[in-house]
Amino acid sequence: MTINLSYCQHLDQADPLAACRDRFALPPGIVYLDGNSLGAMPRAMMQTMQQTLEQEWGGELVKAWNNAGWAQLSQQLGDRVGQLIGAAAGQVVVCDTTSTNLYKAIHAAFSLRPGRDVILTLEDSFPTDLYMIEGAISVSGNRYRCIKVAQDRLLDAIDEAVGVLLLSQVNYRSGELLPMQEITRAAQARGAVVIWDLCHSAGVLPIEVDACEVDFAVGCTYKYLNAGPGAPAYIYVAKRHCKTALQPLRGWWSHADQFAFEPGYRAAEDIRRFLCGTQPVLALKAIACSLDCFAGVSLQQLRDKSIELCQLFIALVEQECADFDIQIIGDHQRQGYGSQVSLRFEHGYALMQALIERGLIGDFRTPDIMRFGFAPLYIGFEDVFQAVQHLRCCLQLELWRESRFQTRQAVT
Amino acid sequence: MTINLSYCQHLDQADPLAACRDRFALPPGIVYLDGNSLGAMPRAMMQTMQQTLEQEWGGELVKAWNNAGWAQLSQQLGDRVGQLIGAAAGQVVVCDTTSTNLYKAIHAAFSLRPGRDVILTLEDSFPTDLYMIEGAISVSGNRYRCIKVAQDRLLDAIDEAVGVLLLSQVNYRSGELLPMQEITRAAQARGAVVIWDLCHSAGVLPIEVDACEVDFAVGCTYKYLNAGPGAPAYIYVAKRHCKTALQPLRGWWSHADQFAFEPGYRAAEDIRRFLCGTQPVLALKAIACSLDCFAGVSLQQLRDKSIELCQLFIALVEQECADFDIQIIGDHQRQGYGSQVSLRFEHGYALMQALIERGLIGDFRTPDIMRFGFAPLYIGFEDVFQAVQHLRCCLQLELWRESRFQTRQAVT
Repeated sequence: MTINLSYCQHLDQADPLAACRDRFALPPGIVYLDGNSLGAMPRAMMQTMQQTLEQEWGGELVKAWNNAGWAQLSQQLGDRVGQLIGAAAGQVVVCDTTSTNLYKAIHAAFSLRPGRDVILTLEDSFPTDLYMIEGAISVSGNRYRCIKVAQDRLLDAIDEAVGVLLLSQVNYRSGELLPMQEITRAAQARGAVVIWDLCHSAGVLPIEVDACEVDFAVGCTYKYLNAGPGAPAYIYVAKRHCKTALQPLRGWWSHADQFAFEPGYRAAEDIRRFLCGTQPVLALKAIACSLDCFAGVSLQQLRDKSIELCQLFIALVEQECADFDIQIIGDHQRQGYGSQVSLRFEHGYALMQALIERGLIGDFRTPDIMRFGFAPLYIGFEDVFQAVQHLRCCLQLELWRESRFQTRQAVT
Repeated sequence: MTINLSYCQHLDQADPLAACRDRFALPPGIVYLDGNSLGAMPRAMMQTMQQTLEQEWGGELVKAWNNAGWAQLSQQLGDRVGQLIGAAAGQVVVCDTTSTNLYKAIHAAFSLRPGRDVILTLEDSFPTDLYMIEGAISVSGNRYRCIKVAQDRLLDAIDEAVGVLLLSQVNYRSGELLPMQEITRAAQARGAVVIWDLCHSAGVLPIEVDACEVDFAVGCTYKYLNAGPGAPAYIYVAKRHCKTALQPLRGWWSHADQFAFEPGYRAAEDIRRFLCGTQPVLALKAIACSLDCFAGVSLQQLRDKSIELCQLFIALVEQECADFDIQIIGDHQRQGYGSQVSLRFEHGYALMQALIERGLIGDFRTPDIMRFGFAPLYIGFEDVFQAVQHLRCCLQLELWRESRFQTRQAVT
């Protein structure tokens, strides 16, 4: 059967999540398959900012820390993010950046495993995760060391020296999904503490950090959670570790009595000990608004639609682009992936620029990987059809050869 | 001479900065003397957010990282903050929180002084600064130690073990201003590296970090810079250290080639090495808007007015409140202070609550200190008069005795 536009439109008509698209302000004429980099803007965002600025900051000034509940936002939003990652209340705070939270988690994890000095991760972990590991090791006076292995060697590499295992649930380039429960159990059985980076998985699939007995997790809110560029990140710490694990970024927000202004540090006995300094309230308010977009939607519904979108994209690429030297990365039938399909193409950077100019926005990761993310809250099946039409057209006309698409920009 | 309302109104009429008040949206009926905690909202803030949301995020989506210049904001804003603290371009980035930047600065400073293991600070440093020191020491495997001294012992305490000196330019409780150049020179002459916390000084007085040859400085933007609750902080690193000092929060934004996604870390050879993860763009945009409020105003003008406001307040308190057991902290004639006057009163917490209810907003610091900050961009001389009227009235009526003012709230 040939997949055509009408078939895709029928899928949209039957989609129980189709109406969620109206929760977002998407520019006309654009197919946006880069929600895995920056989520689309919730339509209510302007109203949220207006209230925050005019009524809260402008109207209440410093009193808004109490009167508008700013002081509780990190914890309240943490609990709401918790609902998306399977964490009961009191184990997540929203704050800082993913990198910074990872740094806290690495030190906290080592603090739980004295005598073990290895942090184990994958060779193709997200580079910033690797850099944060290096940074954590550097200040330790090299008491720790990092071992990076290929994925098929992972479980074998967990020996009695490994104190901490750090993994991304979804690989940022290939989109491959790791089995969280199986790996967490195997690592813990060998005495390691496990940190999961959820940046590319939260918001598009059911994550069960509590049920999987994950130790720590971190993630951002600006991808599939749609909270805006650089919106603050979050950190999950299993309740059993909240009173014992120690992290070094000991700002006053992590103190047992923040406003006592005691000269000595006493860590809060709960998730607040993973806070540090004062958080950007405007950005936190944007997260509150963006989480509203998940109202009435289950993660399983999102996952089901996400898989359908990815499979439709793959089928259409196979149907429309078979004549071109472009490869689908991985085997989406054989194993799990996030809400993303990556294609390999020698001139991927230039091709992606050509696509963006035509109105299909995806992104590129060096050396030759084109990423397409499918945010099931606002991407429809017709979008997928249009996307592949753009792709075929650019390949057929060899638009990637045009010189203006050759120069790299700062951020892609 | 008795100071009366008319005299204060005359001062406002003669004030060259009086028109700057219109740059801010201040609620009617409020005297706002807490700009040292949270600055007032610039009137243009809503317009800034509207453009950022509708045209940039909403209109350009991920392309705005390039097209709207988001990727350069931390550095551009850093250069603009640099103008307020006497730093030439390329030495300041806006990012993260003050606490986190302090943590970077502490490790970076120690990296410049191998063999020295002491960080010296004052007993009454801002508590979170002390906690960050403790945190930095904790991950070092106790290679470092902290010595806290009284202010009059400071210079004597700088011996050959001291690698790092950490000080606030303005004390958060008393408002006392330390002599930056003198202390920096004395410390450096003994081989120490100096970090200044500028939270309570930036934006109200001329600061000359370059001229004073300061090594590192950190500060926030939500006090006298008026960028909004929890707006991102900044870090200054003297050019001579940008290529050599190492900090451990090595996110991808600090990498020499951020989008190369190299597995190994290579620190950027400039101020970018003090960045870490992706910053909240909405909050950065708010900083851009707030810095516009300094257009056409010199720091010396701000300092001159700030001193006049503080001295008027002190004179009025002496004139109006002499019958009450309330003390002005310090001697503003004899030495320098920030743009703040602190009063000591046994029932200071309750009295401040009573004042806030009447429309005079200051804040309270344990155990008995009432702080009043005078932001010269938007506070006028009549405000000072009204403030002291409120104060006298609350003291005379003993409003602080009322039970509803006794209970502490989370944030004050």
